[in-house]
Amino acid sequence: MIFSSDNWAGAHPRIMEGLARHAGGFSPAYGNSDLDKAVEAKFSDVFERDVAVFFVATGTAANSLAMASLAKPGGVVFAHREAHMIEDESGAPEYLTGGARVKPVDGPLGRIDPALLDAAIPGPLTRVPHGGQPVAVSITQSTESGTIYSLDEIAAIGAIAKKHGLPLHMDGARFANALVALDTTPAEMTWKRGVDVLSFGGTKNGCWCAEAVVFMDPSAAEQFPYLRMRAGQLFSKSRFVAAQFEAYLADGHWLTTARHANAMAARLADVLQNSNRMRLGWQPQANEVFAIMPVALMEELTRKGVRFYGWTTPDVLKSEVAPDETLCRFVTSFATTEGDIENLAKNLR
Amino acid sequence: MIFSSDNWAGAHPRIMEGLARHAGGFSPAYGNSDLDKAVEAKFSDVFERDVAVFFVATGTAANSLAMASLAKPGGVVFAHREAHMIEDESGAPEYLTGGARVKPVDGPLGRIDPALLDAAIPGPLTRVPHGGQPVAVSITQSTESGTIYSLDEIAAIGAIAKKHGLPLHMDGARFANALVALDTTPAEMTWKRGVDVLSFGGTKNGCWCAEAVVFMDPSAAEQFPYLRMRAGQLFSKSRFVAAQFEAYLADGHWLTTARHANAMAARLADVLQNSNRMRLGWQPQANEVFAIMPVALMEELTRKGVRFYGWTTPDVLKSEVAPDETLCRFVTSFATTEGDIENLAKNLR
Amino acid sequence: MIFSSDNWAGAHPRIMEGLARHAGGFSPAYGNSDLDKAVEAKFSDVFERDVAVFFVATGTAANSLAMASLAKPGGVVFAHREAHMIEDESGAPEYLTGGARVKPVDGPLGRIDPALLDAAIPGPLTRVPHGGQPVAVSITQSTESGTIYSLDEIAAIGAIAKKHGLPLHMDGARFANALVALDTTPAEMTWKRGVDVLSFGGTKNGCWCAEAVVFMDPSAAEQFPYLRMRAGQLFSKSRFVAAQFEAYLADGHWLTTARHANAMAARLADVLQNSNRMRLGWQPQANEVFAIMPVALMEELTRKGVRFYGWTTPDVLKSEVAPDETLCRFVTSFATTEGDIENLAKNLR
Amino acid sequence: MIFSSDNWAGAHPRIMEGLARHAGGFSPAYGNSDLDKAVEAKFSDVFERDVAVFFVATGTAANSLAMASLAKPGGVVFAHREAHMIEDESGAPEYLTGGARVKPVDGPLGRIDPALLDAAIPGPLTRVPHGGQPVAVSITQSTESGTIYSLDEIAAIGAIAKKHGLPLHMDGARFANALVALDTTPAEMTWKRGVDVLSFGGTKNGCWCAEAVVFMDPSAAEQFPYLRMRAGQLFSKSRFVAAQFEAYLADGHWLTTARHANAMAARLADVLQNSNRMRLGWQPQANEVFAIMPVALMEELTRKGVRFYGWTTPDVLKSEVAPDETLCRFVTSFATTEGDIENLAKNLR
Repeated sequence: MIFSSDNWAGAHPRIMEGLARHAGGFSPAYGNSDLDKAVEAKFSDVFERDVAVFFVATGTAANSLAMASLAKPGGVVFAHREAHMIEDESGAPEYLTGGARVKPVDGPLGRIDPALLDAAIPGPLTRVPHGGQPVAVSITQSTESGTIYSLDEIAAIGAIAKKHGLPLHMDGARFANALVALDTTPAEMTWKRGVDVLSFGGTKNGCWCAEAVVFMDPSAAEQFPYLRMRAGQLFSKSRFVAAQFEAYLADGHWLTTARHANAMAARLADVLQNSNRMRLGWQPQANEVFAIMPVALMEELTRKGVRFYGWTTPDVLKSEVAPDETLCRFVTSFATTEGDIENLAKNLR
Repeated sequence: MIFSSDNWAGAHPRIMEGLARHAGGFSPAYGNSDLDKAVEAKFSDVFERDVAVFFVATGTAANSLAMASLAKPGGVVFAHREAHMIEDESGAPEYLTGGARVKPVDGPLGRIDPALLDAAIPGPLTRVPHGGQPVAVSITQSTESGTIYSLDEIAAIGAIAKKHGLPLHMDGARFANALVALDTTPAEMTWKRGVDVLSFGGTKNGCWCAEAVVFMDPSAAEQFPYLRMRAGQLFSKSRFVAAQFEAYLADGHWLTTARHANAMAARLADVLQNSNRMRLGWQPQANEVFAIMPVALMEELTRKGVRFYGWTTPDVLKSEVAPDETLCRFVTSFATTEGDIENLAKNLR
Repeated sequence: MIFSSDNWAGAHPRIMEGLARHAGGFSPAYGNSDLDKAVEAKFSDVFERDVAVFFVATGTAANSLAMASLAKPGGVVFAHREAHMIEDESGAPEYLTGGARVKPVDGPLGRIDPALLDAAIPGPLTRVPHGGQPVAVSITQSTESGTIYSLDEIAAIGAIAKKHGLPLHMDGARFANALVALDTTPAEMTWKRGVDVLSFGGTKNGCWCAEAVVFMDPSAAEQFPYLRMRAGQLFSKSRFVAAQFEAYLADGHWLTTARHANAMAARLADVLQNSNRMRLGWQPQANEVFAIMPVALMEELTRKGVRFYGWTTPDVLKSEVAPDETLCRFVTSFATTEGDIENLAKNLR
Repeated sequence: MIFSSDNWAGAHPRIMEGLARHAGGFSPAYGNSDLDKAVEAKFSDVFERDVAVFFVATGTAANSLAMASLAKPGGVVFAHREAHMIEDESGAPEYLTGGARVKPVDGPLGRIDPALLDAAIPGPLTRVPHGGQPVAVSITQSTESGTIYSLDEIAAIGAIAKKHGLPLHMDGARFANALVALDTTPAEMTWKRGVDVLSFGGTKNGCWCAEAVVFMDPSAAEQFPYLRMRAGQLFSKSRFVAAQFEAYLADGHWLTTARHANAMAARLADVLQNSNRMRLGWQPQANEVFAIMPVALMEELTRKGVRFYGWTTPDVLKSEVAPDETLCRFVTSFATTEGDIENLAKNLR
């Protein structure tokens, strides 16, 4: 009954088979193998255009190096207040960009409010060196709150970014979960709605270590080979990341696992709500479920071996959480089984 | 007949078995799993003292973050002119330390000359802010030239570092190859000779991605969890690195593969020399063989499918290489077979 | 009728005399002159303890290098939302610290609310590398809103910083204005209330370029000579900064000019308010006056040659400013005359 | 008898008059005053083309921020082994560029050997991310050895830089001394010979603090306002630097003082050589004289109050300096008088 995070799961058997398939033999290092190149080409298929793809070690590296590729002196990135880049990366974006700032923008349940974003970006007339200069907008899909931007919402953010002359980055650590939730295509969810650079995550959806930075316009990636190498993020045996992505993308495997995780989250939400011992914080849209429960219940479940995290209550919800209650997060993944949820249900009875 | 580099080899079957063994099930992320902790403890066994161990994604990251943990403003690191940190890391040490410099020191065949090192480090009386401040000495074992510091030589460098109040770092991307060549123990080759921080590499010796920074004194590592996280180098599914190291260190597997690689290098050296079509640049001591051959022969071998790299001729050898000759590097690994070498021998006949 | 900023004023005649007095002759460069040393000693007199003093070129450099001396990997500095470090330094703190973040804390009129500060600093139990680590608290005295922390308020902030094990920095770009407003001593307003590091500004109070970082505990400044040199902030002819500070501190000159500026601000506030054409945003406490006026009046005054800036309305005041009104800032300095204010009064009639 | 450095001199009376002339009154801060703009325009006159000019606090800042404006990830700058950027800036170029490296190139007496430079810059075919990427060439005029590149030599370096697609920077901390020695114009010594960016120094030639970065092509300076602000290098009362440069450039004052300093150096060289107690290391070309003398004589002169520095012997001269001898540097400036030199001559008799 592990709902702590999707990164507590291991690797999917198909990913392990992919690794095993390519483990032997010699091949050029540092991304120059045939497999690396084939998988890069596969990304262009997936996105329905020529993209530039760079494997890196972690999602934090993907986000931070994406920002580094967009940074300018005194640069300011606009992201949601609860974004991973702000809350969970120990200042990696600031460090790896050489000092850019990530400015929080508000909005309900992990999604930037377009009007607030528009107001937050200074216009050219009010820009003096003292205030720095806007360099990028970043959104997370699905968000840290397990919610999803609709295609129209992405387009709205994209339009604001473009209006201000800024590139739009998407943190897609849970890209697949959002994609299947919207039942759309990678192209529709990214460059067709204004996304320029994407952190494409495979780790949370069944790989052990497969993260990539995807540039929708390869000409914007000219400096990235140096950025990645200089950050110690170029694997020598890069083929092992390629092998994971090959298996990940083959036969829609990544969509299958994401659909499973989302379905488990929906079922989990039902179980939690129907237990009558807690209520949902909000309706889940991907693979994360947030529930408000008595602190005593959280302790009880923990004692019974259910693993999940207490979570910081967003401002909009603060009035709804009683002093003896707490917000909690449950995450599902490819590895979550119906049995896990049934077990949890039993423990709630 | 691939002798390009030990990182062109894949992963050893035992490493793949280790990965497979731990692929399933849930376990805490970010290095908090039982397996992570068990493997960290194993490192303390291996080094015969309590050490602090941090897994990172690449050897470049290990070196650069080790330097970052030692850096001070205006910091100067002393390393061999041909060190990986100087020649092959795209400025990662400078970048990830926030501006430290790596100052080249000379010495024959990849090994720092102790007298030159001593002369290169400014004494306290001549230190003014303009010149920066010495912060570390770094040696590579085995070196970029496939040579090895003897234990006495390490101790001599260690003594000079200590005399100047500087910590000693060892780049051990090929640690195992040196260890078995000297037929000694990790403790003897490191802290007993003055090494304070070690980049411990498993990738070139049969892992797919297993690198670690090892602090001989754990109290010196207090800031490292933040340094690593901030650099995007903390794997969420860290257990997969632990799994590789578990298999790597079990039953002396790492020593077996290193011995094999070194033995293959020795045999290869014989074959190259006995071919009477080239001569060795110098005697190999680990798993790299350097040979001087006619450019025409290099082209002939390449046509025949033998893979290896031309190499920059060190100054000491320049007078010995004729204009129509070139220095070349051959690297062996766990995956090099006697058949590979026999094939090469045939091609040389 | 220039009220744009105190840095629009030139240099006070006594400062110019000081510069002229020391302009000739030879003396050691880089802060090693007798004059440099005498002025450093004078700072220890002023602060009633041995302090370490470092001249730098600008207030931004003073703040940023003070932060750099306190930074750790993933470091988070807590400062008021409207602090100069956040709003007006183009990311210099992030850049010169190598990636620290400055986290905004709220509080009325430029002053950090102690309870919000206490809540914002994570306790040791909730610190994981993901969130970074707190490294410092910074307050501004007098604040960007022209208000002043009382001695008790400084002590309260200092106590919270100490409780969390954090050093307290004071941005004293307008230190003298606050000092005379409180009618206290430098010691009372700093280390006796918990301040560890001070950006001590002379420029806004009549120098042309005299800024210093003052460490109350000199042992905390060991690395600062390197930090300053490495940032290109060590003047070769440092004696010219020393000369300014000598004149600044002699005979209480700095207090005289600060008292004058504050008195002019008080008079200006009266004039603005009594004009019945605008109202004060809040009561001025140092040398800055904020007034809410019709946009039309702002334009009228600008046409008449009165210089001042429109200002961002703080949240607490937003409901009090009508759509056709705007908040404006007027700053006085040593160079503001009664005539300037009388002229403004005439223009308001 | 002070020959320690030209930055031991104070400020020339004409510079002080310039400061005094503009000390009073109000004017816009941060480089927006009429005086700032007039002086910027004057630079365009001096260089016979529209240039972009940015005042900064120190020569180290000028060099490092010039490099920052040219840097790319993994960037490598090529400079002479004895360049100020390498020997005397405490890693400021590495720090302020976010990790660029400055690679030493050899050449006689402070001047880069064009053939060695050409060989040091990797061609496009050999560039892989591991080695970083060349980003700039930097020369110093006059050099750290008091020698001068002829116009043809500058053109030769410029041609090599252009061949490799690299911008050429000139460290002109002693620009005026070189200019009058060559009896040429600023345009001829810079952009007409391939110089793209110049660190233009006034401090060593009689200002107290007047350094500037000059971009021959203003379009290359788009990001510089942010780079400068972010580095804490934008003076609020910038007019005081402008005032120094106004006086410096007026009526050829800067050339007069530089001619004086050079003439004093020539006379000093004669005195030293004719004393028959030492010999010149090489013929001075600007305002620095290097002499080889017995250590005992250095001590004797020091006792007698003559101030100058012992200097590191360049490799080319090592065989010419006996064990009981030492190389010493004497620097002259606007403030050096014939009497100073006559006094030294007496002390040598």
